[in-house]
Amino acid sequence: MAWHVFIPDSLLEETDDPKIRTYKVGQVARACAIFGVEHIWIYRAGGRDGKFIKLVLEYMETPQYLRKRLFPLMPELKYVGVVPPLRTPHHKLKGKPRVGDIREGFAFRRGKRVYADIGLDELAMVEGSVEGRWTFRIISVRPLRVIPAKPTGYWGYRVHLSGKPLAKTLKKAGLNVTIATSRMGLDVREAEIPPLRGEVGFVFGSPRKGVSELLGGEFDFDAVLNTVPNQRTATVRTEEALLATLAVFNLMRRD
Amino acid sequence: MAWHVFIPDSLLEETDDPKIRTYKVGQVARACAIFGVEHIWIYRAGGRDGKFIKLVLEYMETPQYLRKRLFPLMPELKYVGVVPPLRTPHHKLKGKPRVGDIREGFAFRRGKRVYADIGLDELAMVEGSVEGRWTFRIISVRPLRVIPAKPTGYWGYRVHLSGKPLAKTLKKAGLNVTIATSRMGLDVREAEIPPLRGEVGFVFGSPRKGVSELLGGEFDFDAVLNTVPNQRTATVRTEEALLATLAVFNLMRRD
Repeated sequence: MAWHVFIPDSLLEETDDPKIRTYKVGQVARACAIFGVEHIWIYRAGGRDGKFIKLVLEYMETPQYLRKRLFPLMPELKYVGVVPPLRTPHHKLKGKPRVGDIREGFAFRRGKRVYADIGLDELAMVEGSVEGRWTFRIISVRPLRVIPAKPTGYWGYRVHLSGKPLAKTLKKAGLNVTIATSRMGLDVREAEIPPLRGEVGFVFGSPRKGVSELLGGEFDFDAVLNTVPNQRTATVRTEEALLATLAVFNLMRRD
Repeated sequence: MAWHVFIPDSLLEETDDPKIRTYKVGQVARACAIFGVEHIWIYRAGGRDGKFIKLVLEYMETPQYLRKRLFPLMPELKYVGVVPPLRTPHHKLKGKPRVGDIREGFAFRRGKRVYADIGLDELAMVEGSVEGRWTFRIISVRPLRVIPAKPTGYWGYRVHLSGKPLAKTLKKAGLNVTIATSRMGLDVREAEIPPLRGEVGFVFGSPRKGVSELLGGEFDFDAVLNTVPNQRTATVRTEEALLATLAVFNLMRRD
């Protein structure tokens, strides 16, 4: 099973302060990492912050030791220091390398060889011809050698800036189960929850428009659920609904 | 039933930035308001921010129109503007007064009479001799008159800075059911949850110390639960655990 989360590019439309805007995207990153979300989709909803949201999410997801290689200095990242780190399994500390360790790395050609920065004191020699960011397994410590490998367990999320409205974004994602969250939805305590299997998507509305308004009937959800029944505040913010919803569905997860 | 939340005065010990510190306390306020928490207890855990946390929580809980009366200008409140408002039922907008309306107000003596600011264009005459912040019911519109009243439904939270360690704070609170949250706790999906009735407390540890470490065996919890089973990040922050835990228990609430 893989979890997908859908958020609008208007996520930040009620927030002017650049530091708080960064922090909010960080809250989304944290919530997704805590609950093992593998794909974050940013759909078009009249906002202007799609690129910024993607940038901060990807920066957060990148292991600290690779950030300098992958992200040039840019003003949009001025405040990323305020967001707590994800500390997911793929954000490894330096430590002593061991054969079999899986580490995220950045591979590049130097002369005839390919080397990878895997966050250790020395570069690793790569067996294979990949370049760019990649997941590697250590196959030898002296000399340090790695091969491209598949991660085991949760290994961060990918960010998709769809550039398209919600309905088209959902179609592109090719989900098995799609659950929308809405204050107008069925009380999650009473609704029949479709079995969670395959690619499961959780859809969140924008600060000013709920999912049904954004969708205009162009997509059939498997369920539209109110995951915060009996809320005492007039509104629940997207980043709050995200954490609450994932916390609730985490309890139903059995994989 | 009334819900109590227990947070440490060390909540902010990993956060230096004053704007983000304010925002984090705001996250606590928002989470508590969304789920109808009536009491927030700040216990002593070696932190230095008890007063600041209390101040921001109380500021957030106060209806906008009473803030100027109740909070003098102070540097600690410099950044409160970044926190989204609670928008709970007791944060009423101006509107047209009607007999029977319940509004939060601030009462003060002027000459022989007591008046209350209840957030309308004119002051209300108070029947009774209360002073300070109070809840009122409108009994006449022309002239505008109010009497002290009990709120109906959720009416915000009270903040208690206990000045004492967790065990003593818990004893003082006089709870019927006390639930601690901990990564080391029983998986909430499998644990037997004690029936929620009367005064129910949810206890959260500090950034560096879990509840059991803070407690030293001085208090018997009804349950110690892991409300974020299978977390993918090394840590879950107190403000994240708070929202996740309340979201989970909100589904068990039946009052």
